[in-house]
Amino acid sequence: MSEPSLADIKKAISEAGARIDSLMEEILPRNPSDLLSEMIWYHLETGGKRVRPALCLLTCEALGGKADGAMHFALAIEILHNMFLVHDDIEDGDEVRRDRPAVWVKYGVPNAVNAGDYLLAKAQEIILRSAVDAETKLKLLDAFSLTCCATIEGQALDINSRADENFTIEKYLHTVRKKTGCYLACGLVGGAMVAGADDAVIDALWKLGDNMGPAFQIRDDVIDLTIGKGRGGELGCDIREGKASILYAYAIGKTDGKDAKHLREIMGKPRAETTRTDVDWVIDLYKRCGALDHASTYADELVQEAYTVIDSLPVASKGFFRQLARFMAERKS
Amino acid sequence: MSEPSLADIKKAISEAGARIDSLMEEILPRNPSDLLSEMIWYHLETGGKRVRPALCLLTCEALGGKADGAMHFALAIEILHNMFLVHDDIEDGDEVRRDRPAVWVKYGVPNAVNAGDYLLAKAQEIILRSAVDAETKLKLLDAFSLTCCATIEGQALDINSRADENFTIEKYLHTVRKKTGCYLACGLVGGAMVAGADDAVIDALWKLGDNMGPAFQIRDDVIDLTIGKGRGGELGCDIREGKASILYAYAIGKTDGKDAKHLREIMGKPRAETTRTDVDWVIDLYKRCGALDHASTYADELVQEAYTVIDSLPVASKGFFRQLARFMAERKS
Repeated sequence: MSEPSLADIKKAISEAGARIDSLMEEILPRNPSDLLSEMIWYHLETGGKRVRPALCLLTCEALGGKADGAMHFALAIEILHNMFLVHDDIEDGDEVRRDRPAVWVKYGVPNAVNAGDYLLAKAQEIILRSAVDAETKLKLLDAFSLTCCATIEGQALDINSRADENFTIEKYLHTVRKKTGCYLACGLVGGAMVAGADDAVIDALWKLGDNMGPAFQIRDDVIDLTIGKGRGGELGCDIREGKASILYAYAIGKTDGKDAKHLREIMGKPRAETTRTDVDWVIDLYKRCGALDHASTYADELVQEAYTVIDSLPVASKGFFRQLARFMAERKS
Repeated sequence: MSEPSLADIKKAISEAGARIDSLMEEILPRNPSDLLSEMIWYHLETGGKRVRPALCLLTCEALGGKADGAMHFALAIEILHNMFLVHDDIEDGDEVRRDRPAVWVKYGVPNAVNAGDYLLAKAQEIILRSAVDAETKLKLLDAFSLTCCATIEGQALDINSRADENFTIEKYLHTVRKKTGCYLACGLVGGAMVAGADDAVIDALWKLGDNMGPAFQIRDDVIDLTIGKGRGGELGCDIREGKASILYAYAIGKTDGKDAKHLREIMGKPRAETTRTDVDWVIDLYKRCGALDHASTYADELVQEAYTVIDSLPVASKGFFRQLARFMAERKS
């Protein structure tokens, strides 16, 4: 079997993501006279790339399973992802999501909290409808449940590490593994479970998340400083938010005296009070102290570790997983 | 078998509720160095009467089951209840919960949203650990999932019916059945499932919730106007909140002209702008137009319907369920 190319994988992911759309419409019917349905579709129809459900379905097939059995799980992962976006926007005070007012801005905080709760409850319900045997269903629910709890634990660490004066790279990795890694791996794990993969494969896929989650997040942190992820290519949005990135962790470990004090001051400021000069000063500090170089190198190392995990996978379709890792490493949020 | 007395049931409920405490400590370990754990216990240790888990365990035993199998489900119901309280306080802007600052007041909205999410995710995880066979576990998860979704749908209706000018008794009942009824019945249903009860019993227990949920809620609405449920016996807290009670539904159906207009104005005012005179005027209107009498009579009818459902239960322990219904009908929130 020839190894698929990165272009093949991109095409497969884009096609696979669309396969959950009709199930989504069936399970969350659009009902214009029902405000809860209206709010959910206001958010869902802004799209998103459906990467997580695609990874789930493709992993299932790559391991010899039938994607039909994984369809509900794939949808549940996408619903969970959207639930986190709705609640994260409240928690972070982000007013815009995918170029539209965030749900809390349009419908108010009470409705947005409640709509997110609904998506979380619904995600669990969806898995219960999976076309798999009882034992597999319970395994899927276990994986999903573990993922929900870990992601929320990670979010708690993230919320409360803003401007943490004793932030470290270890704390950063612990937070990101919980908040991003588990939840990235969960789709792969669910797909593998439906395909009947054994525990060694499942464990390796979780481990893949431990590497790819932080790798992806660190690349995202670096992009914020070099290309810009805000609209109009503005650099340093994370600095304005006081986000505890790997660069912040590295920089407060490497600087002291006046620089360290000034960095903490800027990261602790409310977003509206952080000036362009503040942001530029922090970006310059991250370059001067080596934080930017360190972050890029560290992300590369994590991706290399992911390849090592893939090489150890006891499956025939290593080429697929290698391209998947490349795809995840290269994609932009 | 002699019929238990109401006093017996009260004692049994109070004792049964305490039986989930050690499992709660085991599954949500107290960890003072972890903020998520701190927040959850800040909320949980304020207590609550643990009525829902008690109903679950006692129902299981009354139907010949072993309560051990229902223990996790009972705990999940209590966790769900507390999750709703944490999020409801944000949604309603309630600053005090069980005589302490609400979680969102003490830890901020972002942390409170996230802590509630954690409790919801954890509740599902707890059920997965139940000491029952796979088939029963999936049934329990189905019942729980249905309850979560219905309760949140009810909350959406409730949030958006404040000061609804076209509110009706039908809308009220639909909202309360979703928001309160399902979730009250869920513990009974879970207990019955663990006891291996057949579908006719399960269906009847759901129906019991359809009657007892609104009965309980209407009594609560009446208490607010006659005894007072706020601290210091203040009357009319629901009026200050603009809550769409059965009294409001009845009154806007029965009045027109100046009275109807004034009622809508008062119910639509922000809480801080509603005066004592406003509240007293609404209470007087509810008395004048017959809303108060209607509500009391209607609650009695719902309780009678509940007794009819119980009489039709194909089980030996009808006496237990009759006392349970009496207990639920008479208890104060």
